[in-house]
Amino acid sequence: SGKKVLIVYAHQEPKSFNGSLLKIAVEELTKQGCSVTVSDLYAMQFEPRATRNDIVGRLHNSEAFNYGVETWEAYKRGGLSKDLVEEQKKVQEADLLIFQFPLFWFNMPAILKGWMDRVLVQGFAYDLSKAYDGGLLQDKLSLFSFTTGGGREMYSKEGIGGDIRYVLWPMQHGIMHFCGVKVLEPHICYAPENVSEEKRKEMLTAWSQRLKTLWKEEPIDCSLEWYFK
Amino acid sequence: SGKKVLIVYAHQEPKSFNGSLLKIAVEELTKQGCSVTVSDLYAMQFEPRATRNDIVGRLHNSEAFNYGVETWEAYKRGGLSKDLVEEQKKVQEADLLIFQFPLFWFNMPAILKGWMDRVLVQGFAYDLSKAYDGGLLQDKLSLFSFTTGGGREMYSKEGIGGDIRYVLWPMQHGIMHFCGVKVLEPHICYAPENVSEEKRKEMLTAWSQRLKTLWKEEPIDCSLEWYFK
Repeated sequence: SGKKVLIVYAHQEPKSFNGSLLKIAVEELTKQGCSVTVSDLYAMQFEPRATRNDIVGRLHNSEAFNYGVETWEAYKRGGLSKDLVEEQKKVQEADLLIFQFPLFWFNMPAILKGWMDRVLVQGFAYDLSKAYDGGLLQDKLSLFSFTTGGGREMYSKEGIGGDIRYVLWPMQHGIMHFCGVKVLEPHICYAPENVSEEKRKEMLTAWSQRLKTLWKEEPIDCSLEWYFK
Repeated sequence: SGKKVLIVYAHQEPKSFNGSLLKIAVEELTKQGCSVTVSDLYAMQFEPRATRNDIVGRLHNSEAFNYGVETWEAYKRGGLSKDLVEEQKKVQEADLLIFQFPLFWFNMPAILKGWMDRVLVQGFAYDLSKAYDGGLLQDKLSLFSFTTGGGREMYSKEGIGGDIRYVLWPMQHGIMHFCGVKVLEPHICYAPENVSEEKRKEMLTAWSQRLKTLWKEEPIDCSLEWYFK
């Protein structure tokens, strides 16, 4: 359909279940005529640490290093490091951002969190009074696709893991919504390591099927009610 | 009091407000007779990426790399990389873990998330049926001490940022409680960059005061009710 998709992928092993989900997404979306870009974070050895190295040249204030201020200033003068500029270009061009990863400690893996920390800097993704519905990354969609270790029954309102939506709040609302990006329903594969080969195949098929009609989906209402009602 | 404290600290700049909070904690706890160790993650250039490099020698299954399985196996045979073994030793010896960091995207900075991902491996911090109240890191306390960018009014049940406890769920419950570590009330300094110098000093004093009676505190009831009631 001519749409552009960026898949930010955080798994070390191409033969993993996450690797299969990635492969399916690339194939299905490409078949639809989308242009698909993959940021394979481990393969890229993507740097997750937010440091002075992210700023090329002189600092705004070299007396006391403030990462938020320095990256904001560097963004404005075109002085961010090359790896960040490249990721920002991919984000800028994308109509849809898909994040594919295994849930690690109720959260995304550090390498993916580092992508968020370093790529979505002030001036690029949001600004002083430009956040949430006014965030700078307008007219984009996002989708969190992940696998869990624990089973579905663990992640319920009464389960020890709580409603799975609780872990989505910081990611979907705190990051994507904050930047003005709309959020599609997450895609969650529960405990693929603990189910039968048949069940795993069903999960892969379900992902492929969902992608076929993805562009007809409405974003969720990314408000407190969706998460905690 | 002879207690051992590990402070895991994630800020790039010693002159920052987080740096001041760290300094206060080290001074006050040392004055009490505690033995204080600091893991200064940026200064250590701590590696946040969970990769094959964390396993010394042969892999359990080199056909398809599974980080969880490989680190578990490596832990059992004493084959984890040196930097992880050192951090695990510090955790093992500690009575109290303090995490000091700026909230970044409703969450901890990637470098600190990487510490969680890599240090708290299966076999060391939890095991198959040893999680939550049965987690392997018994008889330890933890305390999340962090600064925010947004003000206190933003983080309320009706505020756009939601109750601040929502962002604590994955950290306190999903990580510390999962490992059997008890959780003390978090210590939150709201928007230190946007308040007066006087207010900042008050915040530093409040932290110092709290630490004076820290060992008398009761852990929170780290259940769904505390976060979402």
